[in-house]
Amino acid sequence: MNFTLNILGTASALPTVNRYPSAQVLDVRGRLFLIDCGEGVQMQIRRSRLSLLKLDTVFITHLHGDHTFGIFGLLSTMSMLGRKTPFHIYAPEAFGPILGNFLSSFGEGFNFEPVHHTVKTSGPEMIFETRTVEVLAFPLRHRIETYGYLFREKMPMRNVRKEAIWQYGLTLAEIAALKRGEDVVRTPDSAEILKSADLTYLPYEPRSFAYCSDTAPFPELASWISGVDLLYHEATFPEEYGHIARATFHSTTLQAAGCALEAGVKKLVIGHYSSRFPDVNFYLDEVRSIFPDAVLGREGMKIDVPLVRPGR
Amino acid sequence: MNFTLNILGTASALPTVNRYPSAQVLDVRGRLFLIDCGEGVQMQIRRSRLSLLKLDTVFITHLHGDHTFGIFGLLSTMSMLGRKTPFHIYAPEAFGPILGNFLSSFGEGFNFEPVHHTVKTSGPEMIFETRTVEVLAFPLRHRIETYGYLFREKMPMRNVRKEAIWQYGLTLAEIAALKRGEDVVRTPDSAEILKSADLTYLPYEPRSFAYCSDTAPFPELASWISGVDLLYHEATFPEEYGHIARATFHSTTLQAAGCALEAGVKKLVIGHYSSRFPDVNFYLDEVRSIFPDAVLGREGMKIDVPLVRPGR
Repeated sequence: MNFTLNILGTASALPTVNRYPSAQVLDVRGRLFLIDCGEGVQMQIRRSRLSLLKLDTVFITHLHGDHTFGIFGLLSTMSMLGRKTPFHIYAPEAFGPILGNFLSSFGEGFNFEPVHHTVKTSGPEMIFETRTVEVLAFPLRHRIETYGYLFREKMPMRNVRKEAIWQYGLTLAEIAALKRGEDVVRTPDSAEILKSADLTYLPYEPRSFAYCSDTAPFPELASWISGVDLLYHEATFPEEYGHIARATFHSTTLQAAGCALEAGVKKLVIGHYSSRFPDVNFYLDEVRSIFPDAVLGREGMKIDVPLVRPGR
Repeated sequence: MNFTLNILGTASALPTVNRYPSAQVLDVRGRLFLIDCGEGVQMQIRRSRLSLLKLDTVFITHLHGDHTFGIFGLLSTMSMLGRKTPFHIYAPEAFGPILGNFLSSFGEGFNFEPVHHTVKTSGPEMIFETRTVEVLAFPLRHRIETYGYLFREKMPMRNVRKEAIWQYGLTLAEIAALKRGEDVVRTPDSAEILKSADLTYLPYEPRSFAYCSDTAPFPELASWISGVDLLYHEATFPEEYGHIARATFHSTTLQAAGCALEAGVKKLVIGHYSSRFPDVNFYLDEVRSIFPDAVLGREGMKIDVPLVRPGR
């Protein structure tokens, strides 16, 4: 039942000796979601001891090279490893010809289909779901078409308190209804009502993660990612470089922290650091000055979002 | 006056946690030549403390991804670093559309021209030269069109022995002729001949490096790279895997060593190791069993070819 973010790359446009371009893997109960695909991502996946064979979906935010160039080696390696099942790529429309050109030059011998799903939305919209997770895309404000992604567990079925089962002699049908959140009208004539809210509890709080890179700050963003357990927000520049952040449609440390604060998120991790700064420890001081529960993303870092069981 | 090979990647098709795909930089007296361009090459160049700004030429052997995918990040980074001068890419014909597609998707804002020079030859042919170096391309035997490259210093002008200048009272014109290797006929009537071979010496032996990846062995290769100071020859497989080498048009340890022996090269470095083998030390034992002056290529390795001054 883990919900773990793996950080594979924290560089911005120019990688450094120690920082790889953007890529992260969110592991939701063993299901892996790759987010962005910077150069070297296949090596970084191996270094993080994640299985390439378990990956079947990537969400690409935008088509700048530092978020995209790793897809070519990743797909080629999947082919050489014998992949047969489709690999799903959620990305803006312009990824279509990029994929087509790649396959025509390098796709010989591919025995699987890389499937491009076009992401296009002007507000939060569900673009993907499984039985337990849903993914929403929402627009960011960058120099080219860019989307952020919100991953969240679906609301689980409620559990019926054990003592209630005995106290009321609940039938299986009544238990099923109560678990779905429905109240049970026991005897129509006496109108005895067993309320789901009284007899059941949520086994755990659904967890959520939002990925926001690359973006300038804008008013709607905080409401779209409101209350997530973990927020990755780019902080390309320290506060002193706000003018460059503005010119390039990026965020500063304080803008990332401000978004986290306004959205009421539980924890913030930053990244996408400018190559001007080999040491970014001072970024964290700036971020924590207004949002204390923040960490610096680092290659190889794993951040667990623990399961919280609400009081019964 | 250095002549130094920098090894950036020793992986074959599948990179591993420690091995990057193929790329090397030959530094001839400060002029850098990039050879192959595997994913992550821009990071590996930085790690080897080579300057991206000093690179202006790459020689790509063939268009398999593990020799090519790094070109995209490399060109993008050069653009972001403000490059204005052309970058020259020697590669097979099929690189043309790859470059065109790349530029149409990712080339916005490029202020320099990546220039593709088509390599196409059925035997050794000079494709590039400067005042001091020449580069020959020659075909290799792989699954797709593939070329090896031979880098060699040009023959230097001869030096005139100091004592001869005084002994014969040489004029500047006579010295210039002797340096060019021409004999000087001093006095036409007495037919006194000053022989260049007697009065001059070679200041140093021109150095050479051959790069052979990827290839199955074939008879002509040894003669094409005969006597080079340093040979890089792929050795994807140990001897026991000869059947896989044959099937994939690669070489084994003993085939690489056999080529070095037959060509009479001074030193051999191998690479392009199969991902089956995290530890390739045993490759070296196999190679040295028939060619002792061999080393295992490793990421970050630098191999100097020293200047040899022949006896005067």
